[in-house]
Amino acid sequence: MLKEAIYHRPEGAWAYPLDVNCLRIRLRAKRGDRIRCRLLHADRYSGEGDESIVDLEKTATDTLFDYYEGVIPTATRRVRYVFYLEDPMGGCWYGEKGIFNNRREAGDFQFAYICHSHLFEIPDWAYDGVVYQIFPERFYNGDPGNDPAEVEPWNKGARPKANSFYGGDLQGIIDQLSYLKELGVNLIYLTPIFKSPSNHKYDTTDYYRIDPHFGDLDTLKKLVDKAHRLGMRVMLDAVINHAGYGFFAFQDVLKNGADSKYADWFYIQEFPVVTEPVPNYETFANDVWTMPKLNMSHPEVAAYFLDMAEYWIKEAGIDGWRLDVANEVDPDFWRAFRKRVKKANPDALIVGEIWHDSGPWLQGDQFDSVMNYLFRDAVMQFFATREIGADVFDAQLAKSRMLYREQALYAMFNLLDSHDTERFLTACGGREERMRLAVLFQMTYLGMPMIYYGDEAGMDGETDPDCRRPMLWRESDRNGELFTLYQALLRIRRQHPALRRGDYRTWYVDPAAGIYGYLRRTEEDCVGVILNNGGGTQTVSLDTHLFGEAPRLHDPLHGKIVDGRDGRVTVTLAPYEGRMISTNSG
Amino acid sequence: MLKEAIYHRPEGAWAYPLDVNCLRIRLRAKRGDRIRCRLLHADRYSGEGDESIVDLEKTATDTLFDYYEGVIPTATRRVRYVFYLEDPMGGCWYGEKGIFNNRREAGDFQFAYICHSHLFEIPDWAYDGVVYQIFPERFYNGDPGNDPAEVEPWNKGARPKANSFYGGDLQGIIDQLSYLKELGVNLIYLTPIFKSPSNHKYDTTDYYRIDPHFGDLDTLKKLVDKAHRLGMRVMLDAVINHAGYGFFAFQDVLKNGADSKYADWFYIQEFPVVTEPVPNYETFANDVWTMPKLNMSHPEVAAYFLDMAEYWIKEAGIDGWRLDVANEVDPDFWRAFRKRVKKANPDALIVGEIWHDSGPWLQGDQFDSVMNYLFRDAVMQFFATREIGADVFDAQLAKSRMLYREQALYAMFNLLDSHDTERFLTACGGREERMRLAVLFQMTYLGMPMIYYGDEAGMDGETDPDCRRPMLWRESDRNGELFTLYQALLRIRRQHPALRRGDYRTWYVDPAAGIYGYLRRTEEDCVGVILNNGGGTQTVSLDTHLFGEAPRLHDPLHGKIVDGRDGRVTVTLAPYEGRMISTNSG
Ligand SMILES: [Ca+2]
Ligand SMILES: [Ca+2]
Repeated sequence: MLKEAIYHRPEGAWAYPLDVNCLRIRLRAKRGDRIRCRLLHADRYSGEGDESIVDLEKTATDTLFDYYEGVIPTATRRVRYVFYLEDPMGGCWYGEKGIFNNRREAGDFQFAYICHSHLFEIPDWAYDGVVYQIFPERFYNGDPGNDPAEVEPWNKGARPKANSFYGGDLQGIIDQLSYLKELGVNLIYLTPIFKSPSNHKYDTTDYYRIDPHFGDLDTLKKLVDKAHRLGMRVMLDAVINHAGYGFFAFQDVLKNGADSKYADWFYIQEFPVVTEPVPNYETFANDVWTMPKLNMSHPEVAAYFLDMAEYWIKEAGIDGWRLDVANEVDPDFWRAFRKRVKKANPDALIVGEIWHDSGPWLQGDQFDSVMNYLFRDAVMQFFATREIGADVFDAQLAKSRMLYREQALYAMFNLLDSHDTERFLTACGGREERMRLAVLFQMTYLGMPMIYYGDEAGMDGETDPDCRRPMLWRESDRNGELFTLYQALLRIRRQHPALRRGDYRTWYVDPAAGIYGYLRRTEEDCVGVILNNGGGTQTVSLDTHLFGEAPRLHDPLHGKIVDGRDGRVTVTLAPYEGRMISTNSG
Repeated sequence: MLKEAIYHRPEGAWAYPLDVNCLRIRLRAKRGDRIRCRLLHADRYSGEGDESIVDLEKTATDTLFDYYEGVIPTATRRVRYVFYLEDPMGGCWYGEKGIFNNRREAGDFQFAYICHSHLFEIPDWAYDGVVYQIFPERFYNGDPGNDPAEVEPWNKGARPKANSFYGGDLQGIIDQLSYLKELGVNLIYLTPIFKSPSNHKYDTTDYYRIDPHFGDLDTLKKLVDKAHRLGMRVMLDAVINHAGYGFFAFQDVLKNGADSKYADWFYIQEFPVVTEPVPNYETFANDVWTMPKLNMSHPEVAAYFLDMAEYWIKEAGIDGWRLDVANEVDPDFWRAFRKRVKKANPDALIVGEIWHDSGPWLQGDQFDSVMNYLFRDAVMQFFATREIGADVFDAQLAKSRMLYREQALYAMFNLLDSHDTERFLTACGGREERMRLAVLFQMTYLGMPMIYYGDEAGMDGETDPDCRRPMLWRESDRNGELFTLYQALLRIRRQHPALRRGDYRTWYVDPAAGIYGYLRRTEEDCVGVILNNGGGTQTVSLDTHLFGEAPRLHDPLHGKIVDGRDGRVTVTLAPYEGRMISTNSG
């Protein structure tokens, strides 16, 4: 085995508790090194020879590495452990001191005590979550009486500009909750709704007021209450990396300069504050003068926004926060944020907007999950732009799973697109068959599928502002078949615990033929998915031993029995067809 | 180059800020792969082609890997970066997505924003620190009037038992401050001094009272004040993983059982609480009934001990805390502890007792450093038990340095022994020449040397309780030559900034001959050390190019000029001799 490839540390996603009596362990080794990987573990204060043995299972493979995982039970919460790695050439010990032939030289890894703050719990409902992202200005106009002065016509031909208004509002969402229920989602995430001059409202003027073009506190309460009655939850967008130009504290700084008691709330480079030719204060991105960056390391600023976060949970009953530009805000603030939010509502979900490796934020002390743009990157390249094959796709997914703890994976917001990207259908060049296959994948992958409003209706659009067109409601404008597919896949997801709470294993990879298959498994349920991401008809023979002792297999998409004799099943897939096979009929 | 060996993550000791405009980067590669390693970096919001280039330097090598390091300057605090790795076979890009020939495929690593809480600052004085550890019951009896009822005779033949008392106290330390000053230390670390029935006092009865056998608040204040006047600092031992049996809260639980308002302060398995046959509550280690484990995840318990930590800083002016069994206490408590302590005294030092890889505690949010037992492990095996050669010794040191950020390395408590181990001289089998060489190494390595009381006088002893014999004060009992060596080495350390604040580079490794050499360097100063850890005389020729353009070299140990023509110097070393060479005469 290749020693340089072996990797483990007793922290992060490599060693973490599932509860105080259970430690999950991950080990990395060279891809294809056929290692039998065993773990010897004991209480830290016990002597040599007191170790118990756990076999690790290979759970994932990326381009360079295989990953092995297993669970250490512990009664005392104090764990020491060492790996025994064996291949046909022999065995070796891997402990804190390194890799040795001698057990004592290797030493032990230590997880000294499983403490309360090591635990990472996501709300139980998150395992069953299906997210629907709404850009409120563009979803539905439920109250023309609150429209901005000039709104553009709401029709299929609408092509929004950066500063267009259409009149969408919270009443519109309330009016369409039954539509969302019918679609099958259960978590609604709204981009910002607080008072702001823009249509996107990422430049907040007042964090304690609903934008009057969207409604007021009562409208939000009505929305949350009605959603709850329908079994749906509501999350808001916390934009606290930066405020809007009109935010009272920034206005005070503009007026009073260095004498303002809010001068330290921002990163002002010099006084007086100017916006031109370039702002002399830090902003979001590059000199976006309308968005002055907030100093969240300042205790007063932190206190202000912790209060804000709690206020909307207590006052309006919201079910969580999505955190804008979460990676540029002081992690110390996020730690306090988690404590305050979870205290106000232990069932609240916290999701960061991070487009890259989010490991540091997903240790259990900050977020429950992130907007999973790494998922999107892989899905885009495999299904939409078709730059990568099934092998690379599988490797990318595996690599991104191995960045995080299991808990975070189940709570991921797995998106195809968002208000910040081109629409997925557009990325597919309008080829609907590619999108249908990607949606099948999204709805059966590990984590919460997130639907960007209108994707289910066949909406397309280039990146911002074109991806923010007004929602298509007229039957004739909508792609009914796509909607039916979303409905069907979400129904199957509801019927199969394996698709919500099951683990994930690669099942079949044939890059030449464009075939990719995977399994989702719980103790009682197993669903296999096999995708033909290519233009030719393909027949594949699949191993069904991992389905267990199931007497008969089912096809949940077509409601049929599948012939699976002798541990194999043969499936013929049309171009871009995906098929599901399950132990239970659902 | 071996791709599987390449490792980096944008977190931990792999990427961390030195200040808000400076990010230190570390990369790992296969040992011996001669890679030119460059880093392309830019502001996160800048476009392709805006990157600046930094060359990384190879700074360490362990058994399997080479490590490269460099610094990224950033004006905006928002960094993206990618590595370009080149060997004679060609180049490749290494970014968040992996290793690719194509720059875009590799993607960028992101250090999204250098936040206040990412910063890790140790007190400036720590760079110059030399620690002296005192076990107060055994150091000096300054006040026979406060002695325990039965004390054993204080003499060279004393062999303490687990429950022996000798009468040492705080007045004794005050009386001997001039001795410590003469020795050359500047930081005194006292094992516990709060009220407790034992001689070691790791079972605290009252965290707000000095043990009457040691003195009282006034004695402590006098000790701290006098030490400060002499330019020395004083640290105490915080034992809060567990309390003592007599601690008021535990006594309340014993009395009132489940009805005690302190019932949740401990981990009680069932009521009533019993100590026999085994305690039915969690304790330190295995069923040590005198040490009930404290529930530091409980807000009330945390508040009690945060107050305590602040009290002794404010009331007695102490300069920091050493934290007992630090790895088994909730890290969330330690985060609050750091904030509270540094607020009370920004110059306070926080040092955890952790015997293993301490990476998770040294991210800047918990401790400044730890008792460096990994250092001791390596030093023991090379100098005392002589199980490993100079190559393995060098690799072990490198591996342990690469676990941590630079800041923590300079604040490490580099110990040869402690109250919890056998004496180093005993580990050497009494062979003083081995110890002398190890001390030379300790005093010239990166981090704070920590002297366990009496080592400098030639004290020996097996592990606890034998390592806790009463200090030898009578001239005839003491090893004067050893004391003189300590004095001389500490004087040289004071004279050479390179030994306190310089970096560390391996200089010469010859395992067969037992020769090990290394360099300590600042901009203005360079000290080389060459050790002959073997029984034969050895002559070595050393490269002095790394000393820079120095016109002449010095031998600080012997006050001589060294002939270093043409970038080389030849040194002949007697068995177990160590030699120093420096650019400055000091
Ligand atoms: Ca409206
Ligand atoms: Ca005394």
